[in-house]
Amino acid sequence: MQTYDLIIKKRDGQELEPEEIEFLIEGYVQGKIPEYQMAAMAMAIYFQGMGKEETVTLTRALVNSGETIDLSGIEGIKVDKHSTGGVGDKVSLVLIPLLASLGFKAPKMSGRGLGHTGGTVDKLEGIPGFRTDLGRKEFVDQVNRVGAAMIGQTGNLAPGDKKLYGLRDVTGTVDSIPLIASSIMSKKIAGGAENIILDVKFGKGAFMQEMDKARLLAETMVEIGKGMNRKIRAILSSMDQPLGRAVGNNIEVMEAINCLKREGPEDLREVVISLAQAAFQLENHDASREHAREKIETTWKEGKPWDKFQEIVQAQGGDLPTELPLATEFKFKADSSGFVNELDARLIGRCSVVLGAGRKTKEEEVDHQVGIYLQKKRGDRVEKGEVLASVYARDERVFNQAEPLLQKAWLIQENKTEIGPLIGDTID
Amino acid sequence: MQTYDLIIKKRDGQELEPEEIEFLIEGYVQGKIPEYQMAAMAMAIYFQGMGKEETVTLTRALVNSGETIDLSGIEGIKVDKHSTGGVGDKVSLVLIPLLASLGFKAPKMSGRGLGHTGGTVDKLEGIPGFRTDLGRKEFVDQVNRVGAAMIGQTGNLAPGDKKLYGLRDVTGTVDSIPLIASSIMSKKIAGGAENIILDVKFGKGAFMQEMDKARLLAETMVEIGKGMNRKIRAILSSMDQPLGRAVGNNIEVMEAINCLKREGPEDLREVVISLAQAAFQLENHDASREHAREKIETTWKEGKPWDKFQEIVQAQGGDLPTELPLATEFKFKADSSGFVNELDARLIGRCSVVLGAGRKTKEEEVDHQVGIYLQKKRGDRVEKGEVLASVYARDERVFNQAEPLLQKAWLIQENKTEIGPLIGDTID
Repeated sequence: MQTYDLIIKKRDGQELEPEEIEFLIEGYVQGKIPEYQMAAMAMAIYFQGMGKEETVTLTRALVNSGETIDLSGIEGIKVDKHSTGGVGDKVSLVLIPLLASLGFKAPKMSGRGLGHTGGTVDKLEGIPGFRTDLGRKEFVDQVNRVGAAMIGQTGNLAPGDKKLYGLRDVTGTVDSIPLIASSIMSKKIAGGAENIILDVKFGKGAFMQEMDKARLLAETMVEIGKGMNRKIRAILSSMDQPLGRAVGNNIEVMEAINCLKREGPEDLREVVISLAQAAFQLENHDASREHAREKIETTWKEGKPWDKFQEIVQAQGGDLPTELPLATEFKFKADSSGFVNELDARLIGRCSVVLGAGRKTKEEEVDHQVGIYLQKKRGDRVEKGEVLASVYARDERVFNQAEPLLQKAWLIQENKTEIGPLIGDTID
Repeated sequence: MQTYDLIIKKRDGQELEPEEIEFLIEGYVQGKIPEYQMAAMAMAIYFQGMGKEETVTLTRALVNSGETIDLSGIEGIKVDKHSTGGVGDKVSLVLIPLLASLGFKAPKMSGRGLGHTGGTVDKLEGIPGFRTDLGRKEFVDQVNRVGAAMIGQTGNLAPGDKKLYGLRDVTGTVDSIPLIASSIMSKKIAGGAENIILDVKFGKGAFMQEMDKARLLAETMVEIGKGMNRKIRAILSSMDQPLGRAVGNNIEVMEAINCLKREGPEDLREVVISLAQAAFQLENHDASREHAREKIETTWKEGKPWDKFQEIVQAQGGDLPTELPLATEFKFKADSSGFVNELDARLIGRCSVVLGAGRKTKEEEVDHQVGIYLQKKRGDRVEKGEVLASVYARDERVFNQAEPLLQKAWLIQENKTEIGPLIGDTID
């Protein structure tokens, strides 16, 4: 088999056979296939796409390129949640305790990665004493005992994906749905995921801005999951404006806690409930969404998710204070009156990076105390001079750097426009 | 400027600016842009193509990547001919002396390259004593004195093209018309070409099998030439069946000599005349083709091209014998009767390589004495048992290896089918 012939085959729009894809990934990981041939292949895939069979095989080959985590020691129905990421996305902080209090097992491993803010693990590390580096056995034991654990990703998972992603990142071949889908799914599967629920974001602050592309990504991931005999379901959720009102690290943990206490923002709550409903339906395809919702609401009203969160924090050595510290507050005010018709999640995300809440390079630390609290969101009425956002920054200089981004983030108009749905389709 | 952004720009179908293309080629030649980024770019170009402005700039950047040959010491109207190559293509051997005897200056530098047979320079080296390695001054002096010289390519011409071609060759990105056109033209221009006539082949034995693609390649090369202020014209000529009857090295030189003596094959003569007509029209766009043809015919009848060929051979130290040696003759016979409706140039070319007439790797030597003489070509009537080709091979074992290819090369049918035109459009 010659790599050259496989490039030509894909370039000319033909499907690659399973053994051809395995040959490519194995050869690439072993360094037998040079970067330049893989770069040409990735660009050919960008243009020609991949069929269902191809994406499943690619995912399997990426999984097989490294270690796989065995979570068979966890008893019960394990649910693994993944989000394609967005601004103010603190869903896991609420969903994981909820799932555990509903009787599911929720072993949550998260990568750190780069982003507008830290990831779930970074956010949790704002809680004094919270350990995200549990060993494999400790992790399994805690999930069996408490129902959930939230740790950083360990082990050499899907190194083929890591290598390929690194190449795609510098060759303009990231934006390929089959490559994105197989990349995400390979890490999930190598991490031991069985039942999988996906939160695929669409809108300005999402990786996939258009709903159609987000749907295609969700469908592709669901196809891959099924092709690998996993139970899997995806929801599409809007990331046009940030989820909730808090964007940062400590500030998001506090909003998540409010939500766990049923005091939180409605949009965050809706996304969490939709994902929990999906978790129920994984096990029983015909289960009524209403029935699931009833069960979720009852459990939530009984205060169980908030209790479970505290239990998880305690189990992982954390000591939760009443308030997590925040940096100095600066007020960003409206310079006109009207209705907020747009609140650009992407710009708020960039602002968050300017403040220091996210990483620009893998080596950077995130600043837990900085962030943004959105006082006005889409649909809200605002008067000139009212506060649009509280900005928690280290000093005025940084706030001034962030301000031009904030100035473009809100679109305030005389007439109120309609807001699209928060939750799009469910894909299964 | 970031290579990454340029890849995305081209991937998304936008035109690259001149300074962007210069940045790419300079950076690539200097090793600042890695092979994998250039591979992704080449594949993006494969899919998105390039505009006229882009191909011109790319060609200029490739020319500027190395040495350019200054032929300004040659007085008079210089004509440089290039062919995209085919089977039995001995056009230069006839055309160069013809052009010189018509009063043009024909400084011919040829690369060796790989092919079905040796290149022009290899073929000439079958003549005892013939030197193809004249120094720059010797070359210019001979062209001024004799009107023509035929030598091997020297100097570090378009090293950027060499590097890029090497990469395209292993990444499935050779078959891109803008990349092919700029590659060819960069070498021509770096070699000092001013007036350029192009013989772009189409048909089974050509690089561009379809006439439409060949036309597009010709148009692109003509556009590039004009964009670089060269006078340029292309003809399209058929390579469905080999040109002439001889395929090899010595055997092609002898056929070229026959043609120079007006005894040669009609198809070879027609292609040579079309190119010579194009050379006239380069200088005088409105010149009548008929007038040019009359002039060519008169000169040819006077025996001048044959005299000129002998003069060139002598000037370059050659001692032309009456016959050039050939290997042992084996007869390949028809196993049915009818009309030759197809004679597959590609298969004859591959057969020629099996015999040893061409190079498979750059290090190989060509065998001057082997080759094929096609006794029957398209349109010819043949009876079962008649000789289709005389095959000159080193021994019977090699002939036996070549035979299966020959068996597939001729299509003999009861009814004669029409033969397409030998010369397609002229592009200027």
